[in-house]
Formats: sequence, C-alpha cells, structure tokens
Amino acid sequence: MAGIKDVAKKAQVGVGTVSRMINDSGYVSEETRKKIEIAMKELNYTPNELARNLYHKRTGIIAVLVPNITSPFFAEFVNHVEAELYKYGYKMMLCNTEKENNAEAEYLDMLNRHIVDGIITGVHSLNVETYEKINKPIVALDRYLGEDIPVVTANHKEGGRLAAELLVKNGCRNVLHFTGSTEISSPYLERHFEFERVMRNHGINVFTYQLRLNRFDVEYYREAAKDAFSKSADYDGIFAVDELAVECMNEVIRSKKRVPEDIKIVAYDGTFIADMTEPRLTVIAQPIDSLAKESVRLLRDLMNGKSFKNKQIILDVQIRSGGTTFNS
Amino acid sequence: MAGIKDVAKKAQVGVGTVSRMINDSGYVSEETRKKIEIAMKELNYTPNELARNLYHKRTGIIAVLVPNITSPFFAEFVNHVEAELYKYGYKMMLCNTEKENNAEAEYLDMLNRHIVDGIITGVHSLNVETYEKINKPIVALDRYLGEDIPVVTANHKEGGRLAAELLVKNGCRNVLHFTGSTEISSPYLERHFEFERVMRNHGINVFTYQLRLNRFDVEYYREAAKDAFSKSADYDGIFAVDELAVECMNEVIRSKKRVPEDIKIVAYDGTFIADMTEPRLTVIAQPIDSLAKESVRLLRDLMNGKSFKNKQIILDVQIRSGGTTFNS
Repeated sequence: MAGIKDVAKKAQVGVGTVSRMINDSGYVSEETRKKIEIAMKELNYTPNELARNLYHKRTGIIAVLVPNITSPFFAEFVNHVEAELYKYGYKMMLCNTEKENNAEAEYLDMLNRHIVDGIITGVHSLNVETYEKINKPIVALDRYLGEDIPVVTANHKEGGRLAAELLVKNGCRNVLHFTGSTEISSPYLERHFEFERVMRNHGINVFTYQLRLNRFDVEYYREAAKDAFSKSADYDGIFAVDELAVECMNEVIRSKKRVPEDIKIVAYDGTFIADMTEPRLTVIAQPIDSLAKESVRLLRDLMNGKSFKNKQIILDVQIRSGGTTFNS
Repeated sequence: MAGIKDVAKKAQVGVGTVSRMINDSGYVSEETRKKIEIAMKELNYTPNELARNLYHKRTGIIAVLVPNITSPFFAEFVNHVEAELYKYGYKMMLCNTEKENNAEAEYLDMLNRHIVDGIITGVHSLNVETYEKINKPIVALDRYLGEDIPVVTANHKEGGRLAAELLVKNGCRNVLHFTGSTEISSPYLERHFEFERVMRNHGINVFTYQLRLNRFDVEYYREAAKDAFSKSADYDGIFAVDELAVECMNEVIRSKKRVPEDIKIVAYDGTFIADMTEPRLTVIAQPIDSLAKESVRLLRDLMNGKSFKNKQIILDVQIRSGGTTFNS
C-alpha cells in the first residue's frame, strides 16, 4: 500500500508538504496541492484517518447512551440524534446501558481517552460526583448530572398539568396514575408531582402505581397493567406512558369495558406506538425531534469550547387528541 | 498532561520500554511493568487510545447499518448486536441509512480508512460490484452482496410455508398478502414466493399488495392497510409484517368485524409489537437474537483473517400462537 513518502516522491515535493496538506496544518500552494492530489489518485492513496485524528485530537465520534434502544421513545430520540449528528459530520456510537452495570463508566473513560469527542446521555446510574470530575463535553437528556452538564428536557410539569386537566374535563373521578421510579433525580418526575397536585385540587381520587426502575419492556408493562387492574375495577381514567397505555387499553378491552365511554386514557410521550391503537391514543407529546436537535446543538457548543453553568433547555409539550378521551 | 516521556522518566526506564508495554509489542519484565504502572498512576497518565489503535491498526469499532432504527425489527436486531459486540470488547457505531442516499458508501469508505474494523449491514442500495471491490470484514443481514460477503438470514421460505398452511388450516379462502418490494434481491422475499405457491396449490385466492421500498413507518402502514381494505371487503385471512398486521387489525375493528372469527391474521417477524395487541398476534417469529449473534460471530471470524465463499447461515423460524388464528 502506498504511503505518504510514495506520494511525496511521485508529486516531487517534501513529505512535510504532503503532511501539511493532509492535516490541513499549514500553507500549501494551489499548484502543489494539485500535484499531490494527482499523485494520491494515481497511487490510490487514502490518508490514514486514525493518524489524522491523532493529529487533530478528535475522532468525530459521539457516544449516545440510552437504557434500551427498543423502547420507542429512545428509538425515536436516537434516530433524530443520529440524523442531526450526521448533518454536522459526526458519527454516532450507541450503547444500551441496561445490559451492563459498568457500561456508563466505560464510556466516560472512552471520553477521557479520546475515543469519542462527546457524550449525549439518557441514563444515569453513577453518582453526580463522578460526572463532576469530568471536564469534557457531555449533555444530559432528562438527567441532572451536576452544574457543568447541560440538561435538555421537555416541560414535564406542564405535561402533568395538561394530562390532569384533560382527565378532569372528561369527568374522571377515579384515576389510575403510573409513576416512574423516584429512585433517581430526573426532571421527568415533575409531571407526576404536578399531575397529582392538580388532581388533589379537584378532589379527584388518584391510585398511584409506582413502576420499577429501568424496565421498558412490553412484558413488564403488561404485568403492571394487569396488576393495577386487579387492585380495583373503579378506574374511569388512566395516565401512563405510551406502551403502558396500550397495555391498559388491552386490559379495558378484556374487561369488556369501552374506551373512552367507560374509561378515558391519556398517554405520555407520543411515540409511534400511540398511533397504532384503535382508537388512537390521546397523548401529551414530547418534542422528541427537538430534544434531539437541542442535545446535539449544546454538545457542539461544548466541543467548540463553550461552557455552561446550570444550563437547562426546557421544550414545550403538547396535547395530541386521539380517540381515548372526549373533548380536549 | 503527562506524556509517555514523563512516565519513562519517573519510572527510570526508556521511552521505548514504556511504548512496548502500552502497545503490548515486545518483552517487558514483570518488575519493570510494575514500575511503569506505578509511574502512570502517580502521573495520572492514560495511554492515548488513538495512538494505540494506530499501532494495532484496529479501532474496536463495528459499524451497523440499518434503514431505520425505529422499526421494531431493526431495533431488536441492533439491541442484540450491540450487546453481543460489547461482550467481545467492541463498540457499535450505528447508522440509519434511510435519511441519506450516500451514507452506505461513506461507511464503506470508513472501513477502508480504518475508522471501523468491520460492518454488519441490513441495507443495500449500492450495487454488488461496489462490495466486490472491498476486501474487508462485512456481514450482510438478509442481503446478497457478492460471494465474499457472508449472509445471515432466517429460513424465510419455511416461514412463508408455515404462514400459508396456518391460514389454510383456519379455512381461509380469500387472503390478503402484503409483499416487500421486489426491487432488491433479498432472501426474505422467498417467504412471499413460497406463501403464494402453497396458496395456489390449495386453490386459495390471494390478493397481493406490494409495499413500497424502504418505508417502515406507521403512517405508511396505516395508509397501506386502508388502501388494501378499500379494494375488497372479502378478505378472511391476512399475512403481513407485525406493524402492518396491527394496522390491519385496526381496520378490521373499524369495519366491525371480528378477529379471528371473521378474519384471521398471521404476522411476520415476532417483535414486541406483536405482543401489544388484544388478542396477541399469531406470528411467524424470526430468531432475532440468533440473527444478531451469528452476524457478530461471522464478523469476528472475518476480522480474525478467515474468509468465506458463498457462505449463508439460515436460521429456523417458528410459529408463536396468539389469538388472531384458531388451531395452529
């Protein structure tokens, strides 16, 4: 295989000149450039990307960490992140952290060792102190990881309020509410607090069902729906994430009740799953596309040397009316 | 930041010795190793991974190309591939090729430039000649890319036969059959040929509906289902991939017919989507986990210098009975 020396010889220039051109590290005249390009072409020479990256101390690779890619919310988020990164010439390394306890630490280590230029993370099992030690580009989705790491999140508090008011308007009096695990500190928990606050203000009964941490599989959601329905037959309203809302709808169908006549459902997230039921789910939709774009924008800012203190980007959610509620 | 020279000085050994140890490129005595390790620790030195990779001509990164990660089949495949790669110390770079026409060519180029060590691809828009020129580790899922590139696939022919026989056993006489685009050459098309062959042998009417290439979104599937049902109201059986089968089920519900009493449904793939309906879909399940594991195994073989000629791994499919058919 031809090397940089062969190229220099063929183009009749010095090795340093070829190196300057490949690495874009100094002046090379237009005429010389052409000669080198022709020599490269004739020798079928491709510059070694690793060597070039070593020189520039960047790899063009961004790591994205999510608990589980088969979860529709994370699948859509990752899909948009990858497209956005691609636009700016970055490649995405993807890690499902669910399978391994120490994957998160390993990726932080890769950031330190210059294998990736930055991290966008939707997970968090290490403590905040670990993140505080790392002075490198990291952006968090829905996670608080210390004041130096910007957070991108939807307005979950507003989401909780919208969901609650919708069920109130629909005349619900006994509402089943599935909450995420409160073991971790995440802005998305605010939707639950706000939902319950509004419900209390209206004097409505809320049955709170707390889900386990980091379980996003259909099997678990089905169990949880069944379990919740085994505890009471009085629910006339439900608030749950998309996949769980689908499983609740299946429970309602099995119990021979009707949606929305007997039981109203408001789902949270608004992934493609919410459009696959008959009728479609009424959802509080997260702006997944914008969450992805903002995450990439902040990460690029960090990689360009910008720094942030307690930066939080909060994006609007919106009601998307389906057939599982009346007037909305 | 401390460099290799600082480590050598502190450990009172030569720079070459430190380099040999870091790169695992020659003998270093146990005693010297210890001294170097202590020096590295004291100086908080982390070897530059890029430099090390440059030396070894490997990056430990595998690119995985799929049309769209939000498609449940590809999401599950990628999930398993990533977990399997992780086991062997590899990281996964993921590309959704749907968004960009030339992403496929770009990744092949990255393989040539030593940015990734290998590729597992579930897409194919470039011609086979392009792939034949590349003498590097590539494994194809469900795609024929020339005799040097091993193919991992499910036994789709058997899948087509099982689906057909199941609908025959269920007494169907007018079956709606959604086929993939026949524009590309893929082993998965065999299920369609075999399905129609068995149906013809039994004298059963088949309404074939050809889907567009590379559309995996819910919106399109809903349209296709609606369109197919607008053409006839006589179907008593349906054969379609999971997401489309769900949309067909919704069409049946809207037309006030019953599944499986009036219309039987057999879905193909067996992703988590198939378990989210009421009743659950009867499916011909692809062994997605094994498809992923075999892809990684073959890729590792290729990276270890093995070569294959016309290698094809064909894995068994199986019927998973749900409630959208009777006896199965």
